Amino acid sequence: MLVLSSPSGAGKTTLSKKLVELDSNLIMSTSFTTRTKRVGEKDGQDYHFVKVGDFKEMIGENQLLEYALVFGNYYGTPRLPVEKYLAQGKDVVFDIDWQGAQQLAQQKGSVEDVVSVFILPPSASELESRLKSRNQDSISEVESRMSQAASELSHYDEYNYIMVNNEIEESIKTLKAIVKAERLKTSRQTDLHKFVESLTG
Amino acid sequence: MLVLSSPSGAGKTTLSKKLVELDSNLIMSTSFTTRTKRVGEKDGQDYHFVKVGDFKEMIGENQLLEYALVFGNYYGTPRLPVEKYLAQGKDVVFDIDWQGAQQLAQQKGSVEDVVSVFILPPSASELESRLKSRNQDSISEVESRMSQAASELSHYDEYNYIMVNNEIEESIKTLKAIVKAERLKTSRQTDLHKFVESLTG
Repeated sequence: MLVLSSPSGAGKTTLSKKLVELDSNLIMSTSFTTRTKRVGEKDGQDYHFVKVGDFKEMIGENQLLEYALVFGNYYGTPRLPVEKYLAQGKDVVFDIDWQGAQQLAQQKGSVEDVVSVFILPPSASELESRLKSRNQDSISEVESRMSQAASELSHYDEYNYIMVNNEIEESIKTLKAIVKAERLKTSRQTDLHKFVESLTG
Repeated sequence: MLVLSSPSGAGKTTLSKKLVELDSNLIMSTSFTTRTKRVGEKDGQDYHFVKVGDFKEMIGENQLLEYALVFGNYYGTPRLPVEKYLAQGKDVVFDIDWQGAQQLAQQKGSVEDVVSVFILPPSASELESRLKSRNQDSISEVESRMSQAASELSHYDEYNYIMVNNEIEESIKTLKAIVKAERLKTSRQTDLHKFVESLTG
Protein backbone atom coordinates (compact mmCIF):
# COMPACT_ATOMS: atom_id res chain seq x y z
CA MET A 1 0.00 0.00 0.00
CA LEU A 2 1.42 3.33 -1.10
CA VAL A 3 0.10 6.48 0.55
CA LEU A 4 0.63 9.82 -1.19
CA SER A 5 -0.14 12.94 0.82
CA SER A 6 0.51 16.62 0.21
CA PRO A 7 -1.00 20.00 0.88
CA SER A 8 -3.78 20.58 -1.63
CA GLY A 9 -2.24 22.25 -4.68
CA ALA A 10 1.11 20.43 -4.63
CA GLY A 11 0.11 18.25 -7.60
CA LYS A 12 -0.47 14.97 -5.79
CA THR A 13 -3.63 13.92 -7.65
CA THR A 14 -2.06 14.38 -11.10
CA LEU A 15 1.05 12.48 -9.99
CA SER A 16 -0.83 9.56 -8.46
CA LYS A 17 -3.09 9.14 -11.52
CA LYS A 18 -0.08 9.15 -13.85
CA LEU A 19 1.89 6.75 -11.67
CA VAL A 20 -0.97 4.24 -11.66
CA GLU A 21 -1.34 4.53 -15.45
CA LEU A 22 2.33 3.61 -15.93
CA ASP A 23 2.41 0.55 -13.66
CA SER A 24 -0.08 -2.24 -14.29
CA ASN A 25 0.46 -3.63 -10.81
CA LEU A 26 -0.67 -0.39 -9.16
CA ILE A 27 -4.34 0.32 -8.50
CA MET A 28 -5.78 3.57 -7.23
CA SER A 29 -8.03 3.40 -4.20
CA THR A 30 -11.20 5.46 -4.73
CA SER A 31 -12.37 7.25 -1.59
CA PHE A 32 -15.94 7.88 -0.49
CA THR A 33 -16.91 11.47 0.30
CA THR A 34 -19.95 13.44 1.38
CA ARG A 35 -18.77 16.67 -0.26
CA THR A 36 -20.46 18.14 -3.34
CA LYS A 37 -19.18 16.93 -6.69
CA ARG A 38 -17.07 19.55 -8.52
CA VAL A 39 -17.47 20.31 -12.21
CA GLY A 40 -15.68 17.63 -14.24
CA GLU A 41 -15.55 15.09 -11.43
CA LYS A 42 -16.99 11.63 -12.07
CA ASP A 43 -18.78 9.54 -9.46
CA GLY A 44 -16.92 6.28 -8.89
CA GLN A 45 -13.76 7.63 -10.49
CA ASP A 46 -12.62 10.74 -8.59
CA TYR A 47 -14.69 9.77 -5.57
CA HIS A 48 -17.73 7.75 -4.66
CA PHE A 49 -20.14 10.58 -3.77
CA VAL A 50 -22.53 9.53 -1.00
CA LYS A 51 -24.95 11.05 1.51
CA VAL A 52 -23.87 11.70 5.11
CA GLY A 53 -26.26 9.02 6.38
CA ASP A 54 -24.75 6.37 4.11
CA PHE A 55 -21.24 7.42 5.13
CA LYS A 56 -22.07 7.13 8.83
CA GLU A 57 -23.52 3.68 8.20
CA MET A 58 -20.20 2.61 6.63
CA ILE A 59 -18.36 3.91 9.71
CA GLY A 60 -20.73 1.97 11.98
CA GLU A 61 -20.22 -1.23 10.02
CA ASN A 62 -16.40 -0.88 10.07
CA GLN A 63 -16.36 -0.75 6.27
CA LEU A 64 -13.74 2.04 6.19
CA LEU A 65 -9.99 1.59 6.59
CA GLU A 66 -9.70 5.26 7.50
CA TYR A 67 -11.90 8.34 7.44
CA ALA A 68 -11.73 12.00 8.37
CA LEU A 69 -13.99 15.02 8.64
CA VAL A 70 -12.42 17.95 6.77
CA PHE A 71 -14.24 21.31 6.68
CA GLY A 72 -17.58 19.64 7.34
CA ASN A 73 -17.15 16.91 4.69
CA TYR A 74 -16.38 13.26 5.31
CA TYR A 75 -13.70 11.43 3.33
CA GLY A 76 -12.95 7.72 3.73
CA THR A 77 -11.36 4.62 2.19
CA PRO A 78 -13.52 1.51 1.71
CA ARG A 79 -11.94 -1.62 3.16
CA LEU A 80 -13.22 -4.36 0.83
CA PRO A 81 -11.70 -3.26 -2.52
CA VAL A 82 -8.30 -2.74 -0.87
CA GLU A 83 -8.31 -6.19 0.72
CA LYS A 84 -9.39 -7.69 -2.61
CA TYR A 85 -6.61 -5.99 -4.63
CA LEU A 86 -3.93 -6.87 -2.08
CA ALA A 87 -5.06 -10.52 -2.13
CA GLN A 88 -4.61 -10.40 -5.93
CA GLY A 89 -1.00 -9.30 -5.43
CA LYS A 90 -1.65 -5.73 -6.54
CA ASP A 91 -0.22 -2.65 -4.84
CA VAL A 92 -2.81 -0.05 -3.89
CA VAL A 93 -2.21 3.72 -4.08
CA PHE A 94 -4.00 6.11 -1.69
CA ASP A 95 -4.44 9.83 -2.31
CA ILE A 96 -5.31 10.78 1.28
CA ASP A 97 -4.34 13.31 3.96
CA TRP A 98 -2.23 12.96 7.11
CA GLN A 99 -5.23 11.89 9.21
CA GLY A 100 -6.00 9.06 6.80
CA ALA A 101 -2.31 8.12 6.58
CA GLN A 102 -2.10 7.86 10.37
CA GLN A 103 -5.18 5.63 10.58
CA LEU A 104 -3.97 3.44 7.72
CA ALA A 105 -0.58 2.99 9.42
CA GLN A 106 -2.36 1.64 12.51
CA GLN A 107 -4.17 -1.13 10.60
CA LYS A 108 -3.14 -4.72 11.23
CA GLY A 109 -3.36 -8.02 9.38
CA SER A 110 -3.69 -8.02 5.61
CA VAL A 111 -3.60 -4.21 5.44
CA GLU A 112 -0.57 -3.34 7.56
CA ASP A 113 2.17 -2.98 4.93
CA VAL A 114 2.15 0.77 4.22
CA VAL A 115 4.73 2.99 2.50
CA SER A 116 4.07 6.73 2.70
CA VAL A 117 5.32 9.62 0.58
CA PHE A 118 4.86 13.31 1.32
CA ILE A 119 4.84 15.57 -1.73
CA LEU A 120 5.92 19.20 -1.40
CA PRO A 121 5.13 22.06 -3.79
CA PRO A 122 8.20 23.73 -5.37
CA SER A 123 7.66 26.98 -3.41
CA ALA A 124 5.19 28.86 -1.22
CA SER A 125 4.21 31.19 -4.08
CA GLU A 126 3.67 28.22 -6.39
CA LEU A 127 1.46 26.60 -3.77
CA GLU A 128 -0.60 29.77 -3.40
CA SER A 129 -1.02 30.27 -7.13
CA ARG A 130 -2.04 26.63 -7.63
CA LEU A 131 -4.62 26.93 -4.87
CA LYS A 132 -6.00 30.14 -6.41
CA SER A 133 -6.14 28.83 -9.97
CA ARG A 134 -9.07 26.54 -9.25
CA ASN A 135 -11.59 29.05 -10.60
CA GLN A 136 -14.64 27.33 -9.28
CA ASP A 137 -13.61 27.80 -5.66
CA SER A 138 -14.65 30.85 -3.65
CA ILE A 139 -12.11 33.06 -1.87
CA SER A 140 -13.08 31.69 1.54
CA GLU A 141 -12.59 28.17 0.18
CA VAL A 142 -9.09 29.11 -1.05
CA GLU A 143 -8.26 30.62 2.35
CA SER A 144 -9.48 27.61 4.27
CA ARG A 145 -7.53 25.35 1.93
CA MET A 146 -4.40 27.39 2.58
CA SER A 147 -4.77 26.96 6.33
CA GLN A 148 -5.42 23.27 5.69
CA ALA A 149 -2.21 23.16 3.61
CA ALA A 150 -0.26 24.59 6.57
CA SER A 151 -1.76 21.94 8.85
CA GLU A 152 -0.94 19.17 6.35
CA LEU A 153 2.66 20.42 5.99
CA SER A 154 3.19 20.19 9.75
CA HIS A 155 2.89 16.39 9.49
CA TYR A 156 5.53 15.79 6.80
CA ASP A 157 7.90 14.09 9.24
CA GLU A 158 5.46 11.21 9.83
CA TYR A 159 6.08 9.97 6.27
CA ASN A 160 8.69 7.47 5.06
CA TYR A 161 9.67 9.59 2.07
CA ILE A 162 9.52 13.26 1.23
CA MET A 163 9.95 14.83 -2.21
CA VAL A 164 9.52 18.17 -3.96
CA ASN A 165 7.25 18.17 -7.02
CA ASN A 166 9.23 20.59 -9.21
CA GLU A 167 8.56 18.94 -12.53
CA ILE A 168 5.99 16.24 -13.14
CA GLU A 169 8.11 13.88 -15.32
CA GLU A 170 10.96 14.03 -12.81
CA SER A 171 8.53 13.42 -9.94
CA ILE A 172 7.06 10.39 -11.69
CA LYS A 173 10.58 8.95 -12.06
CA THR A 174 11.13 9.58 -8.36
CA LEU A 175 7.90 7.81 -7.38
CA LYS A 176 8.72 4.90 -9.68
CA ALA A 177 12.13 4.56 -7.98
CA ILE A 178 10.44 4.45 -4.57
CA VAL A 179 7.96 1.79 -5.75
CA LYS A 180 10.75 -0.25 -7.38
CA ALA A 181 12.96 -0.08 -4.29
CA GLU A 182 10.15 -0.88 -1.86
CA ARG A 183 9.26 -4.00 -3.87
CA LEU A 184 12.89 -5.16 -3.45
CA LYS A 185 12.72 -5.04 0.34
CA THR A 186 13.75 -8.44 1.65
CA SER A 187 10.61 -8.66 3.79
CA ARG A 188 8.41 -8.40 0.66
CA GLN A 189 10.44 -10.75 -1.57
CA THR A 190 8.91 -13.91 -0.15
CA ASP A 191 9.10 -15.61 -3.57
CA LEU A 192 12.91 -15.39 -3.41
CA HIS A 193 13.18 -17.39 -0.20
CA LYS A 194 12.66 -20.67 -2.06
CA PHE A 195 15.03 -19.53 -4.78
CA VAL A 196 17.77 -19.00 -2.18
CA GLU A 197 17.12 -22.48 -0.80
CA SER A 198 17.52 -23.90 -4.31
CA LEU A 199 20.90 -22.13 -4.63
CA THR A 200 22.24 -23.57 -1.42
CA GLY A 201 21.05 -26.99 -2.52
CA MET B 1 26.47 3.94 3.63
CA LEU B 2 25.43 1.31 1.15
CA VAL B 3 26.49 -2.28 1.78
CA LEU B 4 26.48 -4.74 -1.10
CA SER B 5 26.95 -8.40 -0.26
CA SER B 6 26.60 -11.58 -2.25
CA PRO B 7 28.07 -15.00 -2.55
CA SER B 8 31.35 -14.77 -4.45
CA GLY B 9 30.54 -15.15 -8.14
CA ALA B 10 27.20 -13.34 -8.16
CA GLY B 11 28.70 -10.29 -9.87
CA LYS B 12 28.74 -7.90 -6.91
CA THR B 13 32.18 -6.38 -7.56
CA THR B 14 31.39 -5.51 -11.18
CA LEU B 15 28.04 -4.02 -10.15
CA SER B 16 29.44 -1.92 -7.32
CA LYS B 17 32.25 -0.51 -9.47
CA LYS B 18 29.82 0.44 -12.24
CA LEU B 19 27.34 1.96 -9.79
CA VAL B 20 30.02 4.18 -8.27
CA GLU B 21 31.20 5.28 -11.73
CA LEU B 22 27.69 6.46 -12.62
CA ASP B 23 26.99 8.48 -9.48
CA SER B 24 29.45 11.21 -8.51
CA ASN B 25 28.11 11.26 -4.97
CA LEU B 26 29.02 7.60 -4.40
CA ILE B 27 32.49 6.56 -3.28
CA MET B 28 33.77 3.02 -3.00
CA SER B 29 35.31 2.00 0.29
CA THR B 30 38.59 0.16 -0.27
CA SER B 31 39.16 -2.69 2.17
CA PHE B 32 42.43 -3.82 3.69
CA THR B 33 43.36 -7.49 3.30
CA THR B 34 46.18 -9.82 4.22
CA ARG B 35 45.51 -12.19 1.32
CA THR B 36 47.83 -12.52 -1.66
CA LYS B 37 47.27 -10.14 -4.55
CA ARG B 38 45.69 -11.85 -7.58
CA VAL B 39 46.87 -11.22 -11.14
CA GLY B 40 45.43 -7.93 -12.37
CA GLU B 41 44.62 -6.55 -8.93
CA LYS B 42 46.02 -3.17 -7.95
CA ASP B 43 47.15 -2.23 -4.47
CA GLY B 44 45.07 0.69 -3.15
CA GLN B 45 42.38 0.11 -5.75
CA ASP B 46 41.00 -3.42 -5.40
CA TYR B 47 42.35 -3.70 -1.86
CA HIS B 48 45.06 -2.26 0.32
CA PHE B 49 47.33 -5.32 0.61
CA VAL B 50 49.03 -5.44 4.00
CA LYS B 51 50.91 -7.86 6.24
CA VAL B 52 49.16 -9.71 9.06
CA GLY B 53 51.10 -7.76 11.68
CA ASP B 54 50.01 -4.43 10.26
CA PHE B 55 46.41 -5.62 10.07
CA LYS B 56 46.42 -6.72 13.70
CA GLU B 57 47.86 -3.35 14.69
CA MET B 58 44.89 -1.65 12.96
CA ILE B 59 42.51 -3.89 14.90
CA GLY B 60 44.26 -3.02 18.16
CA GLU B 61 44.04 0.71 17.43
CA ASN B 62 40.32 0.52 16.54
CA GLN B 63 41.08 1.76 13.03
CA LEU B 64 38.66 -0.70 11.42
CA LEU B 65 34.89 -0.30 11.16
CA GLU B 66 34.57 -4.02 10.57
CA TYR B 67 36.85 -6.95 9.88
CA ALA B 68 36.65 -10.68 9.38
CA LEU B 69 38.91 -13.68 9.00
CA VAL B 70 37.89 -15.68 5.92
CA PHE B 71 39.83 -18.83 5.00
CA GLY B 72 42.86 -17.63 6.90
CA ASN B 73 42.90 -14.15 5.39
CA TYR B 74 41.87 -10.93 7.11
CA TYR B 75 39.58 -8.41 5.40
CA GLY B 76 38.64 -5.07 6.96
CA THR B 77 37.28 -1.57 6.34
CA PRO B 78 39.35 1.42 7.47
CA ARG B 79 37.37 3.87 9.62
CA LEU B 80 39.00 7.23 8.75
CA PRO B 81 38.26 7.46 4.98
CA VAL B 82 34.62 6.51 5.59
CA GLU B 83 34.16 9.16 8.27
CA LYS B 84 35.85 11.72 6.02
CA TYR B 85 33.63 10.96 2.99
CA LEU B 86 30.44 10.96 5.06
CA ALA B 87 31.40 14.34 6.57
CA GLN B 88 31.76 15.62 2.99
CA GLY B 89 28.18 14.54 2.28
CA LYS B 90 29.22 11.59 0.12
CA ASP B 91 27.57 8.17 0.25
CA VAL B 92 30.02 5.30 0.70
CA VAL B 93 29.62 1.88 -0.94
CA PHE B 94 30.96 -1.26 0.74
CA ASP B 95 31.68 -4.53 -1.07
CA ILE B 96 31.80 -6.73 2.03
CA ASP B 97 30.42 -10.03 3.35
CA TRP B 98 27.70 -10.76 5.89
CA GLN B 99 30.13 -10.65 8.82
CA GLY B 100 31.26 -7.15 7.80
CA ALA B 101 27.67 -6.07 7.18
CA GLN B 102 26.66 -7.18 10.68
CA GLN B 103 29.53 -5.29 12.31
CA LEU B 104 28.85 -2.17 10.26
CA ALA B 105 25.18 -2.25 11.25
CA GLN B 106 26.22 -2.19 14.91
CA GLN B 107 28.26 1.02 14.56
CA LYS B 108 26.97 4.17 16.23
CA GLY B 109 27.46 7.90 15.79
CA SER B 110 28.56 9.26 12.42
CA VAL B 111 28.67 5.79 10.87
CA GLU B 112 25.29 4.32 11.85
CA ASP B 113 23.18 5.04 8.76
CA VAL B 114 23.49 1.81 6.76
CA VAL B 115 21.42 0.45 3.85
CA SER B 116 22.19 -3.12 2.81
CA VAL B 117 21.54 -5.00 -0.42
CA PHE B 118 21.98 -8.72 -0.97
CA ILE B 119 22.74 -9.73 -4.57
CA LEU B 120 21.77 -13.20 -5.79
CA PRO B 121 23.16 -15.03 -8.83
CA PRO B 122 20.55 -15.89 -11.52
CA SER B 123 20.81 -19.63 -10.77
CA ALA B 124 22.84 -22.27 -8.95
CA SER B 125 24.47 -23.44 -12.19
CA GLU B 126 25.38 -19.85 -13.10
CA LEU B 127 26.93 -19.39 -9.66
CA GLU B 128 28.98 -22.55 -10.04
CA SER B 129 30.19 -21.71 -13.52
CA ARG B 130 31.18 -18.18 -12.45
CA LEU B 131 33.12 -19.56 -9.51
CA LYS B 132 34.90 -22.05 -11.77
CA SER B 133 35.74 -19.54 -14.50
CA ARG B 134 38.39 -17.82 -12.43
CA ASN B 135 41.20 -19.79 -14.01
CA GLN B 136 43.84 -18.78 -11.57
CA ASP B 137 42.08 -20.45 -8.65
CA SER B 138 42.82 -24.05 -7.73
CA ILE B 139 40.05 -26.65 -7.44
CA SER B 140 40.24 -26.64 -3.64
CA GLU B 141 39.89 -22.86 -3.72
CA VAL B 142 36.77 -23.17 -5.90
CA GLU B 143 35.32 -25.74 -3.52
CA SER B 144 35.98 -23.65 -0.45
CA ARG B 145 34.47 -20.64 -2.18
CA MET B 146 31.35 -22.66 -2.96
CA SER B 147 30.92 -23.62 0.69
CA GLN B 148 31.52 -19.96 1.55
CA ALA B 149 28.82 -19.01 -0.97
CA ALA B 150 26.36 -21.30 0.79
CA SER B 151 27.24 -19.73 4.13
CA GLU B 152 26.85 -16.22 2.69
CA LEU B 153 23.46 -17.10 1.17
CA SER B 154 22.15 -18.24 4.55
CA HIS B 155 22.33 -14.62 5.76
CA TYR B 156 20.29 -13.00 2.97
CA ASP B 157 17.39 -12.19 5.30
CA GLU B 158 19.53 -9.82 7.40
CA TYR B 159 19.62 -7.37 4.47
CA ASN B 160 17.20 -4.50 3.72
CA TYR B 161 16.97 -5.36 0.03
CA ILE B 162 17.45 -8.46 -2.03
CA MET B 163 17.81 -8.68 -5.80
CA VAL B 164 18.74 -11.17 -8.51
CA ASN B 165 21.61 -10.16 -10.81
CA ASN B 166 20.24 -11.54 -14.08
CA GLU B 167 21.52 -8.84 -16.38
CA ILE B 168 24.05 -6.21 -15.42
CA GLU B 169 22.34 -3.14 -16.99
CA GLU B 170 19.03 -4.06 -15.35
CA SER B 171 20.76 -4.64 -12.01
CA ILE B 172 22.45 -1.23 -12.20
CA LYS B 173 19.02 0.39 -12.75
CA THR B 174 17.73 -1.51 -9.74
CA LEU B 175 20.61 -0.36 -7.53
CA LYS B 176 20.16 3.23 -8.75
CA ALA B 177 16.46 3.07 -7.80
CA ILE B 178 17.40 1.87 -4.31
CA VAL B 179 19.96 4.67 -3.89
CA LYS B 180 17.50 7.27 -5.22
CA ALA B 181 14.68 6.08 -2.95
CA GLU B 182 16.88 5.84 0.13
CA ARG B 183 18.05 9.43 -0.35
CA LEU B 184 14.39 10.51 -0.30
CA LYS B 185 13.76 9.01 3.13
CA THR B 186 12.35 11.76 5.34
CA SER B 187 14.96 11.06 8.02
CA ARG B 188 17.77 11.84 5.54
CA GLN B 189 16.19 14.94 3.93
CA THR B 190 17.26 17.29 6.68
CA ASP B 191 17.74 20.13 4.16
CA LEU B 192 14.00 20.03 3.41
CA HIS B 193 12.98 20.74 7.00
CA LYS B 194 13.76 24.46 6.61
CA PHE B 195 12.06 24.47 3.24
CA VAL B 196 8.85 23.15 4.82
CA GLU B 197 9.08 25.86 7.48
CA SER B 198 9.37 28.47 4.72
CA LEU B 199 6.21 27.07 3.07
CA THR B 200 4.15 27.33 6.23
CA GLY B 201 5.46 30.86 6.73
